[in-house]
Amino acid sequence: MRPQIATLLKGASIDQEITVMGWVRTFRNNQFIALNDGSTNQNLQVVVDFTKLDESLLKRITTSACIAATGKLVQSQGKGQSVELEAHSLEILGDSDAEKYPLQPKKHSLEFLREIAHLRFRTNTFASVNRLRNALIFGIHQFFQERNFLNIHTPIISASDAEGAGEMFRVTTLHLENLPKTDAGEIDYAEDFFGRSSNLTVSGQLEAELAAMAFTKVYTFGPTFRAENSNTTRHLAEFWMIEPEVAFNELKDNADLAESMLKYVIQYAMDRHPDDIDFLDARLAEEEKQKPTNERAEMGLKEKLNFVLNNNFERITYTEAIEILLLSPAYKKKKFKYDVSWGIDMQSEHERYLVEKHFNKPVIVTDYPKNIKAFYMRQNDNCEPGKETVAAMDILAPGIGEIIGGSQREERLEKLEQRMNEMEIPTKEMFWYLDTRRFGTCKHAGFGLGFERLVQFVTGMGNIRDVIPFPRTPKNCEF
Amino acid sequence: MRPQIATLLKGASIDQEITVMGWVRTFRNNQFIALNDGSTNQNLQVVVDFTKLDESLLKRITTSACIAATGKLVQSQGKGQSVELEAHSLEILGDSDAEKYPLQPKKHSLEFLREIAHLRFRTNTFASVNRLRNALIFGIHQFFQERNFLNIHTPIISASDAEGAGEMFRVTTLHLENLPKTDAGEIDYAEDFFGRSSNLTVSGQLEAELAAMAFTKVYTFGPTFRAENSNTTRHLAEFWMIEPEVAFNELKDNADLAESMLKYVIQYAMDRHPDDIDFLDARLAEEEKQKPTNERAEMGLKEKLNFVLNNNFERITYTEAIEILLLSPAYKKKKFKYDVSWGIDMQSEHERYLVEKHFNKPVIVTDYPKNIKAFYMRQNDNCEPGKETVAAMDILAPGIGEIIGGSQREERLEKLEQRMNEMEIPTKEMFWYLDTRRFGTCKHAGFGLGFERLVQFVTGMGNIRDVIPFPRTPKNCEF
Repeated sequence: MRPQIATLLKGASIDQEITVMGWVRTFRNNQFIALNDGSTNQNLQVVVDFTKLDESLLKRITTSACIAATGKLVQSQGKGQSVELEAHSLEILGDSDAEKYPLQPKKHSLEFLREIAHLRFRTNTFASVNRLRNALIFGIHQFFQERNFLNIHTPIISASDAEGAGEMFRVTTLHLENLPKTDAGEIDYAEDFFGRSSNLTVSGQLEAELAAMAFTKVYTFGPTFRAENSNTTRHLAEFWMIEPEVAFNELKDNADLAESMLKYVIQYAMDRHPDDIDFLDARLAEEEKQKPTNERAEMGLKEKLNFVLNNNFERITYTEAIEILLLSPAYKKKKFKYDVSWGIDMQSEHERYLVEKHFNKPVIVTDYPKNIKAFYMRQNDNCEPGKETVAAMDILAPGIGEIIGGSQREERLEKLEQRMNEMEIPTKEMFWYLDTRRFGTCKHAGFGLGFERLVQFVTGMGNIRDVIPFPRTPKNCEF
Repeated sequence: MRPQIATLLKGASIDQEITVMGWVRTFRNNQFIALNDGSTNQNLQVVVDFTKLDESLLKRITTSACIAATGKLVQSQGKGQSVELEAHSLEILGDSDAEKYPLQPKKHSLEFLREIAHLRFRTNTFASVNRLRNALIFGIHQFFQERNFLNIHTPIISASDAEGAGEMFRVTTLHLENLPKTDAGEIDYAEDFFGRSSNLTVSGQLEAELAAMAFTKVYTFGPTFRAENSNTTRHLAEFWMIEPEVAFNELKDNADLAESMLKYVIQYAMDRHPDDIDFLDARLAEEEKQKPTNERAEMGLKEKLNFVLNNNFERITYTEAIEILLLSPAYKKKKFKYDVSWGIDMQSEHERYLVEKHFNKPVIVTDYPKNIKAFYMRQNDNCEPGKETVAAMDILAPGIGEIIGGSQREERLEKLEQRMNEMEIPTKEMFWYLDTRRFGTCKHAGFGLGFERLVQFVTGMGNIRDVIPFPRTPKNCEF
C-alpha cells in the first residue's frame, strides 16, 4: 500500500525510501514542495534538489499539479513539521496549467468556491469540513451500533403524502409533453411508473416506527427532501437526516439519547481530526474579527464544542420557555419582531434568545402546544383545558437554532385516529401505520437530526451550502 | 437501560430481578411465553404461573401482543435455551387481536409477506435478513474507515443526464395540470424548482471522482435509481450502492480492494450474527429440497460463504472468458440461448456458466470490449485493431451474477474527450468532470457494489424484494 501523508507525518517510515503521491499546494524557492493528499490538512514538505532536476520539469511543479516523489523520509530541519521527504526523483503525473487553474494559493470567497464546488475539496477549508463530515457520519453509525440499534434504509420514493411535513418533489416517468389522460380528462397517474403519484420522502420516521415495533431500537440515515423555495443559510432542498426510533422509550429517554448522541459524535470528530478543528477554530476567529464587536459570538469554535461536551443541556418545558421570554429584557424593550404568548410557534429570534442569551448552551424544550405540532406526537394527559400539549422536544443549539426535533409518539390507537381525523389525515391510506397501534402497540419515541446542521455546528461554517459537497437549493442543481 | 434479550441469553443478569419488554411469538400450555425483542432470532422463554394470573390477562397473551414481564432470570430447565425468566408479574402493553392479526404462527409465503411489508419485520426470516443487512451496512463503513477512506454524500437529485447508465426518474415541482410554456410552446423548465430539468441519480461515481482527486480515497453509500420497467428477482427501481474511488489505483488494485472488501464484510456479518446465518442456512436448505435435484445449488449458504472467504477469486480477462465459453460443452451442445463471440455483452446464462459451472466461485472478469462499456473507462494501450478493450472489471458471484462493476478511469484528457465525442456525450456540460483531467489528473479506479445483491448473496434470499425493507418496483410503491 502507498503510504498516506497523515501516517507519514506521525513519524512512520523514517529513513526509509518511499514514494508519495499527491497534489502540490505550493512550491517555494525551486526547492520546497508542500504536498497534500487529503488525508490531513497538514502538507508534507518535499525537498528537491533543483540543481539536479530539469528546468522544464521544475516549471511543471505548479499549484494542484499531481506528482509522485520518491526519496527518503527524514527528520525535518525546518520549523512546523516533524518529517520531510528528501526527494531524489520526481514524476509529474498530471499537469495543472497555472494560468487556467481557477484556485490560486490565496484566500477565495466562499461564494466563489460554491461556483466551483467540483474543485473546492482541494482547499484547506473544504477539506477540513469534509473530513469532519465523514467523521460525524461514522461517529453516528458507531454510536448507534455500539448500542445495538439497527440501521434501516427507509424508502426515498414514497407514494404517501400524508405526513404534511413540507412541500414535496414529484417523481415521475410520464412524458410531460404528452401526459396520459383519463376519460374524465384528468392526468392518469395509473400510467406513471409506480401506478400512482409519487414523491421524494420528507422523513423516514413512520417507516422507522414500523421497524422499531420489531427490533426495539433502530435508526435511519438517509437523504430527505423539501421543495420549499427558501433561500437561507439554514435550508437545503436535499439534506441528510438521522432518525432513531426506540420502542419503550418515553420523552425523557428520548432527550437522554439525543444528548448523549450529540456529545458522543462531537467528541469523536474532535478526537479524530484535532488539526481540522484547530484550523476551523482559527478560521472562524478570523471571520469573527471582521464583524462589529456586538455581533461576535461569545465563544470560539473549540471553546463552544468543549462547553457543550462538559455541560448538561438545559431542559425546560415550552411553557417555561414562554415565561422566560415574557420576562426577558428583550421582550420588555420590544426588541422581538414577533410577539410572544402561550401557543405561538417560537421564531428563530426567540430560540436564539433562549440559547444564546439566556442559557448560553444547548436547550431541550419539551411539551409544546398540541396545535403547532404533528399528528403523531403523544398527547399529554391532564392538560389544562385550552393548553393541551404533546410530548414533543426540540433541541436548540447556539448559532444554529433547531438541530433536533423529536417526540414520544401517540401509541394509543383511538387518540391517534381522533387526532388524524381532526387534522384531516386519511386514516384509511395510513392503515399500515395504524396497524402498529392495532397489533402489539407500545410507548415509543424518536427524533430527527438534521445532519448538515450538525456539521455546521461542529465546523463553525455559517452557510449550510458549505457543509455538503454539492448543495441543492432553488435554481441550483450544479454538478 | 432495559436489558435486551440478546444480552440476557448470553447469561448476563442471572438471578437478578429484571423487567423485559418485547413481543409474544408463541404461548404454550398457559405457561411458556416465547418473547422476542428483535435483538436476536432467539426468543427468551418467560415462564408464568397461570394459577396466579387472572384468566382475562392470560387470554391477552396472543401472538404479537406487546408485554412487559418482571421476575428473576434463572438457568433454564428446558432444552434449547440457556436461561429463562421466571415471571412473577406481567403487563400487557399492547394487545394483538388474534382474529385480526395477519401473521399467524405458521409459515407464510414470501409473496404474501411482501403485501404486508409493514409487519414482516416480525417474522424470523425478515428479522434475520434485516439484522444481517444492518451488519453489512456497518461492516462496509468500518472496512473503509479503517483504511482512511472518506464517505462522501454525492447528490441524489442531479441535472446531469450525460452518463447514460439507465432510464431516469424526473424530479419536478411543476404543476402537471398547468405546465408553464416558453414562447415557442415548449415546456419551460426554467420555471422548475432547480431552473432546469432534473432527475434522480443513477450513480455517484462522477462526483466521487472529483472528491478522490482531493482526498485520494473516498466512497459513497447512498440510494440510486433506475426507471426501468424490469420485473425481475434481481432489479429494484430504488436500491443502495457503494462506490469507492481511489486515486493512483490501477485495475489490479481495484480488484484487490473489491475482493478484500467483500471478504471483510461477509466475515463481519457472519461473526456478528451466527444465529441468523444458521437460521437462513436451514431455511435455504429446506427451500432447495423443494426443487428438482438438477436445479439445486451445489452448496448450502454457510458452505458457500465459507468457500468464498477461503478461496481467491478467479481472475480472467473477457477474452479468456469468451474462449472458455466457446470451448464449453454447453456451447457445443447449443445449450446457450444467446450466441457467443468476441464482442458480445455476456448474458446472464454465460456469466452463470462461468461462475457456477466452470469455476464455481466468484470470478473477476477484466478488460472488456470498449464498445460495450461506458465512456469513462480507461482505454487499454496496445490492443489488436478491432479488439480494443477498456480496463473494466465485473465481479460475478454464484447465484447472483454481477455483484460489482468497476474500472480504471480514463485519466487522459484527450482520450476521454475523444471517446465522449464518439459517444455523443456533451463535453461542454461536463466541464466539471473534465476539469479533474485538466488540473492535476492521475490514474484512478473505482467500482460500484449493488448493496441489495450483496445482501442477497449473504442471506441466500432469491428475490431482491425480500432484502430491502420496502421495495420499489414497477407499479409498486407501498408504505
